[in-house]
Amino acid sequence: MEDCSVAGIPAQAYWGDPLASVSTPALMLDLDAFESNLAGMAALARRHGVALRPHAKAHKSSEIAKRQMAAGATGICCQKLSEAYPFVAAGITDIHISNEFVGPRKVRMAVELARRAALSVCVDHVAQVDALGSAAAEAGVSLVILPEIDIGQGRCGVTRFAELAALVERVSRHASLRFGGLQAYHGGIQHEASAEQRRTAAAVAAEKTAQHVAYLASLGVACPVVTGGGTGTAEFDMQTGVYTEIQPGSYIFMDRHYGGIEWQGMWQPRHSLFIATTIMSTAKPGIAVCDVGLKGVAVDSGLPIVQPGRHGALQYAAANDEHGILRTASDDRRDRLGEQLLLIPGHCDPTANLYNQYVCFRGERVEDVWDIDARGLSQ
Amino acid sequence: MEDCSVAGIPAQAYWGDPLASVSTPALMLDLDAFESNLAGMAALARRHGVALRPHAKAHKSSEIAKRQMAAGATGICCQKLSEAYPFVAAGITDIHISNEFVGPRKVRMAVELARRAALSVCVDHVAQVDALGSAAAEAGVSLVILPEIDIGQGRCGVTRFAELAALVERVSRHASLRFGGLQAYHGGIQHEASAEQRRTAAAVAAEKTAQHVAYLASLGVACPVVTGGGTGTAEFDMQTGVYTEIQPGSYIFMDRHYGGIEWQGMWQPRHSLFIATTIMSTAKPGIAVCDVGLKGVAVDSGLPIVQPGRHGALQYAAANDEHGILRTASDDRRDRLGEQLLLIPGHCDPTANLYNQYVCFRGERVEDVWDIDARGLSQ
Repeated sequence: MEDCSVAGIPAQAYWGDPLASVSTPALMLDLDAFESNLAGMAALARRHGVALRPHAKAHKSSEIAKRQMAAGATGICCQKLSEAYPFVAAGITDIHISNEFVGPRKVRMAVELARRAALSVCVDHVAQVDALGSAAAEAGVSLVILPEIDIGQGRCGVTRFAELAALVERVSRHASLRFGGLQAYHGGIQHEASAEQRRTAAAVAAEKTAQHVAYLASLGVACPVVTGGGTGTAEFDMQTGVYTEIQPGSYIFMDRHYGGIEWQGMWQPRHSLFIATTIMSTAKPGIAVCDVGLKGVAVDSGLPIVQPGRHGALQYAAANDEHGILRTASDDRRDRLGEQLLLIPGHCDPTANLYNQYVCFRGERVEDVWDIDARGLSQ
Repeated sequence: MEDCSVAGIPAQAYWGDPLASVSTPALMLDLDAFESNLAGMAALARRHGVALRPHAKAHKSSEIAKRQMAAGATGICCQKLSEAYPFVAAGITDIHISNEFVGPRKVRMAVELARRAALSVCVDHVAQVDALGSAAAEAGVSLVILPEIDIGQGRCGVTRFAELAALVERVSRHASLRFGGLQAYHGGIQHEASAEQRRTAAAVAAEKTAQHVAYLASLGVACPVVTGGGTGTAEFDMQTGVYTEIQPGSYIFMDRHYGGIEWQGMWQPRHSLFIATTIMSTAKPGIAVCDVGLKGVAVDSGLPIVQPGRHGALQYAAANDEHGILRTASDDRRDRLGEQLLLIPGHCDPTANLYNQYVCFRGERVEDVWDIDARGLSQ
């Protein structure tokens, strides 16, 4: 079950099994918390009259995307073209590629996806528009184009009105393309610790977005879609009235990074994503060694933490390739060999991208196992 | 080709294609450099009369392991049990699990693997010995046990003679188990910048190892195998005369981390592992945005570097989930949209673990594509 292509490896988990029997390392999804997060964000979007287009880059699993759609999502975002294939194959046919891409191989993927899905894509260069327009015309498909504007992230997207106007004009030259509105995302403000600072930063970003919408309106160009926003600012983004849809990803999982910011007064997702690990060496006083290291948890946003409350004062102190070094309390004399822990990863997206499956549990039992079918699909 | 389970995604690369046509991000293997590394370490081991048991955790590909065996390797190391399955399936039947594990699920895997391979495993706790002994007896298989001694790493492995003696004695109680010798690895010294410091540190570690071998000899216990050593200290490890076999992993690839240490006078591997990336946004002055971020390169040992010499003064400055921010020289006014670069990853092992395939090239052409069939197999 861990990898369908390798015959012989025993399944990592069986339906109905107790958690302690799961073969570690395992990426664990607490279904109660997950479903609460799913419903919470959907309710928030409904309340504000904003469409919800969850970002599938966070989970890369069509099982999760199907549940997001069932909870009322208008479609999903993907960050890469190859990432979109398993979702289309699973019957999700409204996909926004919230990112730029370039080159004939990528353009061909966009055209192929557009045969089976309503596909919108981002551009920030006229050469991208022309390549898409020609390929779509040749294939007889239609693509929706959302130019990306940079509202503070300093990464992709145009910053000047004239550049935006040039992109919109360029789109209009291609009968195979349709201008759909704007992509406007500011990832840099999602993790601001203070909720008040996030509110202010989100308002500034939304104001920039609104200026671009108004500018296009002054040219007689309407924006049917204005898409952006993320987990950390979702509630504020919705309140601005600027975005027609928001695209949070991490809200279904949470992670240590998001868990560490202030959510005061906001709707706050629960931790649903964990890594099950087993202590496999206790030969040293003061430490316990577990079986999750760099290949089992992303450390770009900090080390994982041990789920509080169950295991005393164990602290994940260092990640080697396949080992995690846990520091034990100085008065802790227990031999913890074989003890299973749950870790909260520092950063959910790149952590989920390490695994082939979610082991889904409710309470103390395994309920299901879901493939991460877009794992590693980064083209 | 990117993932066999997802129908419809175009192949990432085709045999004979020019490099520029590879769909990025792609994990690229320079076959000339790879073969040179393969032969170089094998020659070194032969010259010193030491067996070579390359660590497959670095590459996780049976295609590479088969080439290591063809170059004279005595077998391979795996760090995890599930990791070993695709290698056994590919016909590699001499495998050392250079790590501890615990629990009935893991013990069952060891017993299953032992049905089809000569399997040795590590222990540092008597409970592990008893669990393996009972399960092996029940299954009617034989396991070779290499207790791990800690020679400075401070992670797994026993540190005291009495503990080692207890493990050896415990092994002798089980007819299904055979004491095979010692596992003695010091990862912490592999990346010491100064070659002289590495030589000294390797000598200290080998001396500790030799003391344990001598201690067991004083009990009348011979060590047929003393296995350890890594890429950074391989040449020094071989010279000590303490190890019967060495287990380097990264030598086939190199990475920025290993590339940054001093190799003066030693045999030095060449960079064979790269990540092909494409610049997909040039909307901002001073930066170019490429399509490789945290999901395409491990950053635990530092950011990747742009392959020198081809692209002027481009510097990989920051990794977002799916984006890399490249800083351009202040006088660089080129529009680099669509330009393909090769990156040297900071750390090869966890980077290779992100990809499903190696795109193998020679000169400027794709020659082959190899599956990373043990990718993500971390149980």
